Amino acid sequence: MPASHHTIDTDAVVVGAGPVGLFQVFQLGLQGLQTHVIDALPALGGQCAQLYGDKAIYDIPALSACSGHELVQKLAQQCAPFAPQWHLGELVNSISRQADGRLEVTTAQGTRLLTRTVFIAAGVGAFMPRPLKLAGLDDFLGQQVFYELHDADMLAGQHVVIHGGGDSAIAQVLECASLPPAQRPTSITLLHRRNTFEAPADMLAQFEELRAQGLIQVAVGQATGIQTHAGKLAALTLLAPDGSTQALVLDILLVKLGLLPRLGPVTEWGLTLERKQLEVDTATFATNSPGIYAVGDIVTYPGKRKLLVCGFHEATLAAFAAIEYLTGQTTPLEYTSSSTRLQQRLGIYATHSQNHSNFPAALP
Amino acid sequence: MPASHHTIDTDAVVVGAGPVGLFQVFQLGLQGLQTHVIDALPALGGQCAQLYGDKAIYDIPALSACSGHELVQKLAQQCAPFAPQWHLGELVNSISRQADGRLEVTTAQGTRLLTRTVFIAAGVGAFMPRPLKLAGLDDFLGQQVFYELHDADMLAGQHVVIHGGGDSAIAQVLECASLPPAQRPTSITLLHRRNTFEAPADMLAQFEELRAQGLIQVAVGQATGIQTHAGKLAALTLLAPDGSTQALVLDILLVKLGLLPRLGPVTEWGLTLERKQLEVDTATFATNSPGIYAVGDIVTYPGKRKLLVCGFHEATLAAFAAIEYLTGQTTPLEYTSSSTRLQQRLGIYATHSQNHSNFPAALP
Ligand SMILES: Cc1cc2nc3c(=O)[nH]c(=O)nc-3n(C[C@H](O)[C@H](O)[C@H](O)COP(=O)(O)OP(=O)(O)OC[C@H]3O[C@@H](n4cnc5c(N)ncnc54)[C@H](O)[C@@H]3O)c2cc1C
Ligand SMILES: Cc1cc2nc3c(=O)[nH]c(=O)nc-3n(C[C@H](O)[C@H](O)[C@H](O)COP(=O)(O)OP(=O)(O)OC[C@H]3O[C@@H](n4cnc5c(N)ncnc54)[C@H](O)[C@@H]3O)c2cc1C
Repeated sequence: MPASHHTIDTDAVVVGAGPVGLFQVFQLGLQGLQTHVIDALPALGGQCAQLYGDKAIYDIPALSACSGHELVQKLAQQCAPFAPQWHLGELVNSISRQADGRLEVTTAQGTRLLTRTVFIAAGVGAFMPRPLKLAGLDDFLGQQVFYELHDADMLAGQHVVIHGGGDSAIAQVLECASLPPAQRPTSITLLHRRNTFEAPADMLAQFEELRAQGLIQVAVGQATGIQTHAGKLAALTLLAPDGSTQALVLDILLVKLGLLPRLGPVTEWGLTLERKQLEVDTATFATNSPGIYAVGDIVTYPGKRKLLVCGFHEATLAAFAAIEYLTGQTTPLEYTSSSTRLQQRLGIYATHSQNHSNFPAALP
Repeated sequence: MPASHHTIDTDAVVVGAGPVGLFQVFQLGLQGLQTHVIDALPALGGQCAQLYGDKAIYDIPALSACSGHELVQKLAQQCAPFAPQWHLGELVNSISRQADGRLEVTTAQGTRLLTRTVFIAAGVGAFMPRPLKLAGLDDFLGQQVFYELHDADMLAGQHVVIHGGGDSAIAQVLECASLPPAQRPTSITLLHRRNTFEAPADMLAQFEELRAQGLIQVAVGQATGIQTHAGKLAALTLLAPDGSTQALVLDILLVKLGLLPRLGPVTEWGLTLERKQLEVDTATFATNSPGIYAVGDIVTYPGKRKLLVCGFHEATLAAFAAIEYLTGQTTPLEYTSSSTRLQQRLGIYATHSQNHSNFPAALP
């Protein structure tokens, strides 16, 4: 369902709430700009959260060790004083220039923003559910086939099949099995290619217990097609490991095959690309289009390494370049440790201090 | 006294143990290189430690707040696994190329290193004691005039004057006043231009108590010259605030006027400069001289901002560039969170892991 179609007016939009997008929000905040941040995912953190949330990272300066999830939490906490506006679960589809020079950013979910600057921190692309590709299946999308379950009520009394073998599939099985009686499906079947599953140990233990109790079934095989009946999706055709073909009857199919980064949109915004990376100027991290900056894994320049420490530097210089672009003035360097103005913006300036001359902080 | 003149053979020398020099050590360690680090100061941390050790910094990525001293401690801890060799209290005087292409680095204290790469992280220059400039005074350096007290025994029974009004001067006064009776000076006088002093409150309280007890004296005035007697320094000529001239009799003068960064040497190594900053290539952070890289506040390039987050990026790319320079091979990106090789170098690779194929870590 598209969100309401009102237009948001702003100075800065950050595309991507990965680690570099989050630090971009912080650096723009230091420059006095409030940001709108859009991410296709419902959660913050990009690759750090999705691909290695529980692994330790050792090369963040002055952080000897820190998990992906912890890093994301620390970055989110750091930019919180600047109260960014989040638009999560929204895919940025287009960025185009208006007659008045401003940039129009629209999402697949119907949000429209008018902004003077855009910061593309799109990483390896928008994280989207990995699609199940079967001829005719998409006709039932939103009716019987779902990538994200929004309304558990529809499961009551239905034969529900969950497809996948990782965290998100196992979590979905557990959620369905714990629904109150009135919402409970008639059957819950996990479909996966193998009889082994990857998820945290405690989740797997719960899963195996439900399975032992006969509350959930497991179907092992590869979906090769669909079967319909009276205009409805009736079953999936499965190729079993022994080579036989079976039909897996269902009313509702929940596809939980994990995430896949989709670079698509970013390559269609008229920005100069080199091997699907955005080309930027290393003095400003500006793209070829005025007011559009790019930072993090999505960019390329001589010497570029796809590391967090590089993205943080890029976001910093992009913020300086953008504020100079917006104000038409050069911005002198100030230190967070000594500048009253920056500390006011951060909300940590002691109001009982003797020096009130710069108070309240003015936008530059 | 110069140290022994043996020559150290190494692959990498880092000039400057400021925050960026420390992160350079870490990044070189990840690349498999052990480093020798030289700093004019006896302590780590450069500006962070000397100029704002107790103030909070707010713009280190994922560190919402952290004092200068804490930052230095965290950076030192992070590079500890790579066991850098410290040469503290030594001023790098010259860097010159040998006939065999290697670089010879020498310090004013007599250390000589032969190395294939040098990383100049010299910040705003070598932190040196601010000199007291009075005609003829330097003739008594090391005899009666000292910037650093190495041997408290020499103070016994002497008239000692300490010159300065900040932390280091006050600390020196307290140290002298707490010497055991056998080493105690006959008199301890603090000479400062004003009758106000800047130091942490607890130190000032101790100081005022000693002063009230008559155990130390304070002389207020400006030193304008020296007086000698029988070839020895006998007194300083002082211009008192009331315009009168006095003689301050002394046997030993301890000069504690704080630190002054001295850029001097760095500008004399034949490297391309722009307004006293080293020019670098932003892909490699190489200077114009092969094997010599420069990072942090000492460098300039289009867009450069003298911030920690920028220095950390520079040190990272310099380490990649250097290892490629040393090996003649391109170095693929590896992640600390997933690379066995990097985790072995960091000393955190679980030795009970099943994958021993890369063990032990080979230098690239
Ligand atoms: C397994 C692994 C281990 C790693 N280990 C380390 C390490 O130890 N050290 C290190 O420095 N780096 C490491 N990295 C690399 C590091 O994670 C990346 O450099 C970093 O995540 C890049 O951040 P980013 O914000 O640029 O992009 P991402 O993290 O990719 O985030 C981009 C975000 O933008 C969103 N997005 C993209 N396009 C759109 C669109 N059109 N509309 C809406 N949203 C969009 C995506 O959904 C995503 O959330 C590792 C990476 C992996 C995969
Ligand atoms: C008051 C103040 C507040 C600041 N606040 C912030 C902040 O909030 N955020 C931020 O990002 N940055 C801040 N900065 C800037 C930050 O401190 C610098 O960017 C950083 O210190 C640069 O690190 P560096 O390692 O390049 O140089 P430095 O810290 O200057 O260290 C260089 C070291 O090299 C040594 N050295 C130089 N030449 C020689 C030689 N010939 N031989 C031997 N040793 C030598 C010096 O003695 C010194 O220890 C602040 C700076 C100041 C002064």
